[in-house]
Amino acid sequence: MEALKKKILSDGTAIGTEIVKVDSSLNHQIDVAFLNEIGKEFARIFSDIEVTKIITIEASGIAIAAIAAQYFNNIPVVFAKKTESRNLDPDKYHSEVYSFTKQKTYPIMVSKKYISSEDKILIIDDFLANGKAALALKNLCEQAGASVQGIGIVIEKGFQKGGRLLREENHIRVESLAIIDSIDDGKITFRD
Amino acid sequence: MEALKKKILSDGTAIGTEIVKVDSSLNHQIDVAFLNEIGKEFARIFSDIEVTKIITIEASGIAIAAIAAQYFNNIPVVFAKKTESRNLDPDKYHSEVYSFTKQKTYPIMVSKKYISSEDKILIIDDFLANGKAALALKNLCEQAGASVQGIGIVIEKGFQKGGRLLREENHIRVESLAIIDSIDDGKITFRD
Repeated sequence: MEALKKKILSDGTAIGTEIVKVDSSLNHQIDVAFLNEIGKEFARIFSDIEVTKIITIEASGIAIAAIAAQYFNNIPVVFAKKTESRNLDPDKYHSEVYSFTKQKTYPIMVSKKYISSEDKILIIDDFLANGKAALALKNLCEQAGASVQGIGIVIEKGFQKGGRLLREENHIRVESLAIIDSIDDGKITFRD
Repeated sequence: MEALKKKILSDGTAIGTEIVKVDSSLNHQIDVAFLNEIGKEFARIFSDIEVTKIITIEASGIAIAAIAAQYFNNIPVVFAKKTESRNLDPDKYHSEVYSFTKQKTYPIMVSKKYISSEDKILIIDDFLANGKAALALKNLCEQAGASVQGIGIVIEKGFQKGGRLLREENHIRVESLAIIDSIDDGKITFRD
Protein backbone atom coordinates (compact mmCIF):
# COMPACT_ATOMS: atom_id res chain seq x y z
CA MET A 1 0.00 0.00 0.00
CA GLU A 2 1.91 3.00 -1.33
CA ALA A 3 0.16 5.55 0.91
CA LEU A 4 1.20 3.53 3.96
CA LYS A 5 4.84 3.37 2.88
CA LYS A 6 4.82 7.14 2.40
CA LYS A 7 3.21 7.59 5.81
CA ILE A 8 5.84 5.39 7.48
CA LEU A 9 8.63 7.37 5.80
CA SER A 10 7.11 10.77 6.63
CA ASP A 11 5.78 10.11 10.16
CA GLY A 12 7.68 7.04 11.35
CA THR A 13 10.97 6.92 13.23
CA ALA A 14 13.53 4.17 12.65
CA ILE A 15 15.61 3.23 15.69
CA GLY A 16 18.62 0.95 15.49
CA THR A 17 18.09 -2.05 13.22
CA GLU A 18 14.81 -3.43 14.59
CA ILE A 19 12.37 -0.72 15.66
CA VAL A 20 10.18 1.55 13.62
CA LYS A 21 7.92 3.80 15.65
CA VAL A 22 4.62 4.86 14.12
CA ASP A 23 3.14 6.22 17.31
CA SER A 24 2.13 9.51 15.70
CA SER A 25 -0.54 7.86 13.56
CA LEU A 26 -1.06 4.19 14.38
CA ASN A 27 -0.54 3.01 17.93
CA HIS A 28 -0.46 5.90 20.40
CA GLN A 29 -1.85 8.88 18.55
CA ILE A 30 -4.33 7.63 15.95
CA ASP A 31 -4.91 9.18 12.53
CA VAL A 32 -8.52 8.13 12.05
CA ALA A 33 -8.81 9.21 8.40
CA PHE A 34 -5.72 7.17 7.57
CA LEU A 35 -7.06 4.17 9.50
CA ASN A 36 -10.10 4.36 7.22
CA GLU A 37 -7.79 4.00 4.21
CA ILE A 38 -6.15 1.01 5.88
CA GLY A 39 -9.57 -0.52 6.62
CA LYS A 40 -10.67 -0.10 2.98
CA GLU A 41 -7.47 -1.76 1.80
CA PHE A 42 -7.95 -4.78 4.09
CA ALA A 43 -11.52 -5.11 2.79
CA ARG A 44 -10.30 -4.97 -0.82
CA ILE A 45 -7.55 -7.56 -0.25
CA PHE A 46 -9.82 -9.96 1.63
CA SER A 47 -12.89 -9.41 -0.57
CA ASP A 48 -12.58 -13.00 -1.86
CA ILE A 49 -13.19 -14.64 1.52
CA GLU A 50 -16.14 -14.75 3.89
CA VAL A 51 -15.45 -13.19 7.30
CA THR A 52 -17.92 -13.23 10.20
CA LYS A 53 -15.69 -11.72 12.90
CA ILE A 54 -12.48 -9.74 13.29
CA ILE A 55 -10.20 -10.71 16.17
CA THR A 56 -7.40 -8.53 17.45
CA ILE A 57 -5.45 -7.95 20.65
CA GLU A 58 -5.35 -5.03 23.03
CA ALA A 59 -4.29 -2.31 22.79
CA SER A 60 -2.75 -1.29 19.45
CA GLY A 61 -4.94 -3.51 17.30
CA ILE A 62 -8.27 -2.23 18.56
CA ALA A 63 -8.64 1.03 16.64
CA ILE A 64 -7.40 -0.57 13.42
CA ALA A 65 -9.81 -3.50 13.74
CA ALA A 66 -12.80 -1.34 14.75
CA ILE A 67 -12.35 1.10 11.87
CA ALA A 68 -11.69 -1.76 9.41
CA ALA A 69 -14.87 -3.58 10.47
CA GLN A 70 -16.85 -0.71 8.95
CA TYR A 71 -15.68 -1.98 5.55
CA PHE A 72 -16.65 -5.58 6.38
CA ASN A 73 -20.37 -4.86 6.82
CA ASN A 74 -19.88 -3.88 10.47
CA ILE A 75 -19.15 -7.44 11.57
CA PRO A 76 -18.27 -7.76 15.28
CA VAL A 77 -14.74 -7.14 16.50
CA VAL A 78 -13.40 -9.04 19.50
CA PHE A 79 -10.21 -7.97 21.20
CA ALA A 80 -8.26 -10.46 23.27
CA LYS A 81 -7.44 -9.16 26.75
CA LYS A 82 -4.08 -9.35 28.46
CA THR A 83 -5.15 -8.96 32.07
CA GLU A 84 -7.78 -10.44 34.35
CA SER A 85 -10.65 -8.18 35.36
CA ARG A 86 -13.87 -8.47 37.31
CA ASN A 87 -15.56 -7.65 33.99
CA LEU A 88 -14.05 -10.62 32.14
CA ASP A 89 -15.96 -13.89 32.05
CA PRO A 90 -14.41 -16.72 34.07
CA ASP A 91 -15.24 -19.05 31.16
CA LYS A 92 -12.61 -18.14 28.58
CA TYR A 93 -9.98 -19.34 26.11
CA HIS A 94 -6.34 -18.77 27.12
CA SER A 95 -3.12 -18.58 25.20
CA GLU A 96 0.34 -17.09 25.76
CA VAL A 97 2.46 -14.59 23.81
CA TYR A 98 6.08 -13.57 23.98
CA SER A 99 6.25 -9.83 23.31
CA PHE A 100 9.24 -8.60 21.36
CA THR A 101 8.71 -4.95 22.35
CA LYS A 102 8.01 -5.64 26.04
CA GLN A 103 10.43 -8.56 26.38
CA LYS A 104 8.15 -10.74 28.46
CA THR A 105 5.50 -13.43 28.19
CA TYR A 106 1.89 -12.51 28.87
CA PRO A 107 -1.44 -14.35 28.70
CA ILE A 108 -4.21 -13.47 26.26
CA MET A 109 -7.84 -14.32 26.89
CA VAL A 110 -11.16 -14.25 25.08
CA SER A 111 -14.50 -15.04 26.64
CA LYS A 112 -15.93 -18.29 25.25
CA LYS A 113 -19.12 -16.41 24.43
CA TYR A 114 -17.46 -14.41 21.65
CA ILE A 115 -15.88 -17.02 19.41
CA SER A 116 -17.87 -19.98 18.12
CA SER A 117 -17.25 -22.92 15.82
CA GLU A 118 -19.40 -21.15 13.20
CA ASP A 119 -17.03 -18.18 13.00
CA LYS A 120 -14.83 -17.39 10.01
CA ILE A 121 -12.15 -15.20 11.51
CA LEU A 122 -9.95 -12.46 10.15
CA ILE A 123 -7.13 -11.60 12.57
CA ILE A 124 -5.94 -7.99 12.35
CA ASP A 125 -2.94 -6.42 14.09
CA ASP A 126 -0.67 -3.41 13.74
CA PHE A 127 2.70 -5.21 13.56
CA LEU A 128 4.01 -8.63 12.63
CA ALA A 129 7.47 -9.30 14.06
CA ASN A 130 8.16 -12.76 15.47
CA GLY A 131 4.56 -13.88 14.86
CA LYS A 132 3.88 -14.94 18.44
CA ALA A 133 0.81 -12.71 18.96
CA ALA A 134 -0.81 -13.76 15.69
CA LEU A 135 -0.15 -17.43 16.40
CA ALA A 136 -1.63 -17.13 19.91
CA LEU A 137 -4.74 -15.46 18.49
CA LYS A 138 -5.06 -18.26 15.93
CA ASN A 139 -4.69 -20.77 18.76
CA LEU A 140 -7.55 -19.09 20.68
CA CYS A 141 -9.78 -19.28 17.61
CA GLU A 142 -8.96 -22.95 17.06
CA GLN A 143 -9.79 -23.76 20.69
CA ALA A 144 -13.28 -22.50 19.81
CA GLY A 145 -13.39 -24.57 16.62
CA ALA A 146 -13.49 -21.41 14.50
CA SER A 147 -11.61 -21.20 11.21
CA VAL A 148 -9.00 -18.51 10.69
CA GLN A 149 -9.42 -17.28 7.11
CA GLY A 150 -6.49 -14.92 7.12
CA ILE A 151 -4.34 -12.44 8.97
CA GLY A 152 -4.19 -8.76 8.04
CA ILE A 153 -1.13 -6.86 9.22
CA VAL A 154 -0.42 -3.17 8.80
CA ILE A 155 3.39 -3.35 9.05
CA GLU A 156 5.40 -6.55 8.78
CA LYS A 157 9.02 -6.62 9.85
CA GLY A 158 10.17 -8.79 6.98
CA PHE A 159 13.60 -9.26 8.55
CA GLN A 160 12.06 -11.12 11.50
CA LYS A 161 10.76 -14.65 11.39
CA GLY A 162 7.01 -14.06 11.88
CA GLY A 163 6.11 -14.02 8.20
CA ARG A 164 7.83 -17.33 7.51
CA LEU A 165 6.47 -18.90 10.71
CA LEU A 166 2.88 -18.05 9.77
CA ARG A 167 2.94 -18.51 6.00
CA GLU A 168 5.28 -21.45 5.54
CA GLU A 169 5.19 -23.38 8.80
CA ASN A 170 1.52 -22.75 9.63
CA HIS A 171 0.09 -22.28 6.10
CA ILE A 172 -1.89 -19.18 7.01
CA ARG A 173 -2.75 -16.48 4.50
CA VAL A 174 -0.99 -13.36 5.77
CA GLU A 175 -1.48 -10.04 3.98
CA SER A 176 0.74 -7.18 5.13
CA LEU A 177 0.07 -3.67 3.83
CA ALA A 178 3.77 -2.81 4.08
CA ILE A 179 6.75 -5.12 4.56
CA ILE A 180 9.97 -3.63 5.89
CA ASP A 181 13.02 -5.55 4.73
CA SER A 182 15.57 -3.63 6.74
CA ILE A 183 16.09 -0.76 9.16
CA ASP A 184 19.59 0.62 9.06
CA ASP A 185 20.83 3.79 10.68
CA GLY A 186 17.48 5.56 10.32
CA LYS A 187 16.85 4.24 6.82
CA ILE A 188 13.81 2.04 6.14
CA THR A 189 13.83 -0.26 3.11
CA PHE A 190 10.54 -1.78 1.95
CA ARG A 191 10.01 -5.01 0.10
CA ASP A 192 8.62 -4.38 -3.41
CA MET B 1 -29.59 8.06 24.88
CA GLU B 2 -32.60 5.76 24.69
CA ALA B 3 -31.00 3.30 22.24
CA LEU B 4 -28.11 2.84 24.68
CA LYS B 5 -30.41 2.16 27.63
CA LYS B 6 -32.24 -0.45 25.54
CA LYS B 7 -28.90 -1.98 24.51
CA ILE B 8 -27.75 -2.18 28.13
CA LEU B 9 -31.01 -3.85 29.13
CA SER B 10 -31.00 -6.30 26.21
CA ASP B 11 -27.27 -7.16 26.03
CA GLY B 12 -25.89 -6.17 29.44
CA THR B 13 -25.61 -8.32 32.53
CA ALA B 14 -26.08 -6.90 36.03
CA ILE B 15 -24.02 -8.58 38.75
CA GLY B 16 -24.54 -7.88 42.45
CA THR B 17 -25.07 -4.21 43.21
CA GLU B 18 -22.09 -2.64 41.42
CA ILE B 19 -21.24 -4.34 38.14
CA VAL B 20 -22.92 -4.15 34.77
CA LYS B 21 -21.17 -6.07 32.02
CA VAL B 22 -21.52 -4.82 28.46
CA ASP B 23 -18.78 -6.97 27.03
CA SER B 24 -20.95 -8.25 24.18
CA SER B 25 -21.04 -4.85 22.49
CA LEU B 26 -18.76 -2.30 24.14
CA ASN B 27 -15.56 -3.48 25.78
CA HIS B 28 -14.63 -7.01 24.70
CA GLN B 29 -16.73 -7.77 21.68
CA ILE B 30 -17.44 -4.50 19.85
CA ASP B 31 -20.64 -3.65 17.99
CA VAL B 32 -19.19 -1.24 15.45
CA ALA B 33 -22.52 -0.02 14.05
CA PHE B 34 -23.68 0.79 17.57
CA LEU B 35 -20.41 2.57 18.35
CA ASN B 36 -21.15 4.78 15.35
CA GLU B 37 -24.46 5.75 16.97
CA ILE B 38 -22.58 6.54 20.19
CA GLY B 39 -20.04 8.61 18.27
CA LYS B 40 -22.77 10.61 16.55
CA GLU B 41 -24.42 11.29 19.89
CA PHE B 42 -21.16 12.57 21.44
CA ALA B 43 -20.70 14.86 18.42
CA ARG B 44 -24.25 16.17 18.80
CA ILE B 45 -23.90 16.80 22.55
CA PHE B 46 -20.50 18.50 22.23
CA SER B 47 -21.32 20.41 19.02
CA ASP B 48 -21.17 23.71 20.97
CA ILE B 49 -17.47 23.39 21.86
CA GLU B 50 -14.26 23.34 19.85
CA VAL B 51 -12.29 20.10 20.15
CA THR B 52 -8.87 19.51 18.59
CA LYS B 53 -8.09 16.12 20.07
CA ILE B 54 -9.80 13.20 21.78
CA ILE B 55 -7.95 11.54 24.66
CA THR B 56 -8.84 8.14 26.06
CA ILE B 57 -7.17 5.29 27.91
CA GLU B 58 -6.33 1.78 26.82
CA ALA B 59 -7.97 -0.57 26.22
CA SER B 60 -11.77 -0.15 26.45
CA GLY B 61 -11.84 3.50 25.45
CA ILE B 62 -9.94 3.11 22.18
CA ALA B 63 -12.62 1.78 19.85
CA ILE B 64 -15.20 4.23 21.20
CA ALA B 65 -12.85 7.21 20.78
CA ALA B 66 -11.63 6.17 17.31
CA ILE B 67 -15.14 5.65 15.94
CA ALA B 68 -16.37 8.87 17.61
CA ALA B 69 -13.53 10.92 16.08
CA GLN B 70 -15.08 10.28 12.66
CA TYR B 71 -17.91 12.60 13.75
CA PHE B 72 -15.45 15.26 14.98
CA ASN B 73 -13.87 15.89 11.57
CA ASN B 74 -11.39 13.02 12.06
CA ILE B 75 -9.41 14.87 14.72
CA PRO B 76 -6.56 12.83 16.23
CA VAL B 77 -7.20 10.37 19.05
CA VAL B 78 -4.52 9.73 21.65
CA PHE B 79 -4.80 6.81 24.02
CA ALA B 80 -2.90 6.87 27.30
CA LYS B 81 -0.83 3.74 27.86
CA LYS B 82 -0.69 1.70 31.03
CA THR B 83 2.62 -0.08 30.53
CA GLU B 84 6.13 0.82 29.50
CA SER B 85 7.27 -0.35 26.07
CA ARG B 86 10.29 0.08 23.84
CA ASN B 87 7.89 1.84 21.47
CA LEU B 88 6.88 4.50 24.02
CA ASP B 89 8.80 7.76 24.11
CA PRO B 90 10.93 8.26 27.23
CA ASP B 91 9.74 11.89 27.31
CA LYS B 92 6.17 11.57 28.60
CA TYR B 93 3.52 12.78 31.01
CA HIS B 94 2.68 10.43 33.91
CA SER B 95 -0.29 10.09 36.18
CA GLU B 96 -1.78 7.35 38.37
CA VAL B 97 -5.19 5.68 38.50
CA TYR B 98 -6.91 3.43 41.00
CA SER B 99 -8.95 0.89 39.06
CA PHE B 100 -12.25 -0.15 40.59
CA THR B 101 -12.60 -3.24 38.38
CA LYS B 102 -8.99 -4.40 38.77
CA GLN B 103 -8.58 -3.30 42.40
CA LYS B 104 -5.10 -1.88 41.97
CA THR B 105 -3.22 1.31 41.15
CA TYR B 106 -1.55 1.63 37.77
CA PRO B 107 0.37 4.37 35.93
CA ILE B 108 -0.89 6.04 32.76
CA MET B 109 1.42 7.73 30.28
CA VAL B 110 1.20 9.90 27.17
CA SER B 111 4.16 10.96 25.05
CA LYS B 112 4.78 14.70 25.36
CA LYS B 113 4.67 14.90 21.56
CA TYR B 114 0.94 14.21 21.43
CA ILE B 115 -0.58 16.79 23.78
CA SER B 116 0.26 20.47 23.47
CA SER B 117 -0.79 23.69 25.16
CA GLU B 118 -2.79 24.53 22.01
CA ASP B 119 -5.03 21.49 22.39
CA LYS B 120 -8.70 21.63 23.34
CA ILE B 121 -9.36 18.17 24.64
CA LEU B 122 -12.42 15.96 24.82
CA ILE B 123 -11.86 12.96 27.10
CA ILE B 124 -13.89 9.88 26.15
CA ASP B 125 -14.23 6.65 28.11
CA ASP B 126 -16.57 3.68 28.35
CA PHE B 127 -17.39 3.86 32.08
CA LEU B 128 -17.40 6.45 34.84
CA ALA B 129 -17.34 4.90 38.32
CA ASN B 130 -15.14 6.54 40.94
CA GLY B 131 -13.78 9.06 38.42
CA LYS B 132 -10.12 8.24 39.00
CA ALA B 133 -9.29 7.42 35.35
CA ALA B 134 -10.96 10.57 34.02
CA LEU B 135 -9.24 12.73 36.63
CA ALA B 136 -5.84 11.22 35.80
CA LEU B 137 -6.42 11.86 32.09
CA LYS B 138 -7.37 15.46 32.90
CA ASN B 139 -4.20 15.75 34.98
CA LEU B 140 -2.07 14.54 32.02
CA CYS B 141 -3.69 17.15 29.76
CA GLU B 142 -3.08 19.89 32.30
CA GLN B 143 0.59 18.93 32.62
CA ALA B 144 0.79 19.76 28.89
CA GLY B 145 -1.05 23.05 29.39
CA ALA B 146 -3.98 21.80 27.28
CA SER B 147 -7.55 22.67 28.21
CA VAL B 148 -10.06 19.92 28.89
CA GLN B 149 -13.33 21.03 27.29
CA GLY B 150 -15.41 18.12 28.51
CA ILE B 151 -15.66 14.44 29.29
CA GLY B 152 -17.89 12.08 27.32
CA ILE B 153 -18.83 8.85 29.05
CA VAL B 154 -20.87 6.00 27.64
CA ILE B 155 -22.14 4.56 30.94
CA GLU B 156 -21.96 6.38 34.27
CA LYS B 157 -22.49 4.48 37.50
CA GLY B 158 -24.53 7.22 39.15
CA PHE B 159 -24.42 5.45 42.51
CA GLN B 160 -20.64 5.90 42.69
CA LYS B 161 -18.88 9.13 43.45
CA GLY B 162 -17.18 9.85 40.09
CA GLY B 163 -19.90 12.09 38.70
CA ARG B 164 -19.94 14.31 41.78
CA LEU B 165 -16.11 14.35 41.99
CA LEU B 166 -15.76 15.55 38.40
CA ARG B 167 -18.76 17.87 38.08
CA GLU B 168 -18.98 19.47 41.52
CA GLU B 169 -15.49 19.27 42.97
CA ASN B 170 -13.56 19.74 39.72
CA HIS B 171 -16.13 21.78 37.72
CA ILE B 172 -15.74 19.68 34.56
CA ARG B 173 -18.49 19.28 32.03
CA VAL B 174 -19.32 15.57 32.04
CA GLU B 175 -21.88 14.17 29.60
CA SER B 176 -22.89 10.55 30.12
CA LEU B 177 -25.02 8.82 27.51
CA ALA B 178 -26.64 6.63 30.19
CA ILE B 179 -26.55 7.00 33.96
CA ILE B 180 -27.32 3.95 36.07
CA ASP B 181 -28.77 4.86 39.45
CA SER B 182 -28.84 1.38 40.89
CA ILE B 183 -28.14 -2.26 40.20
CA ASP B 184 -30.14 -4.57 42.36
CA ASP B 185 -30.50 -8.32 42.01
CA GLY B 186 -30.11 -8.20 38.23
CA LYS B 187 -32.30 -5.10 37.82
CA ILE B 188 -30.79 -1.94 36.34
CA THR B 189 -32.47 1.40 37.08
CA PHE B 190 -31.53 4.40 34.94
CA ARG B 191 -31.64 8.06 35.90
CA ASP B 192 -34.25 9.95 33.84
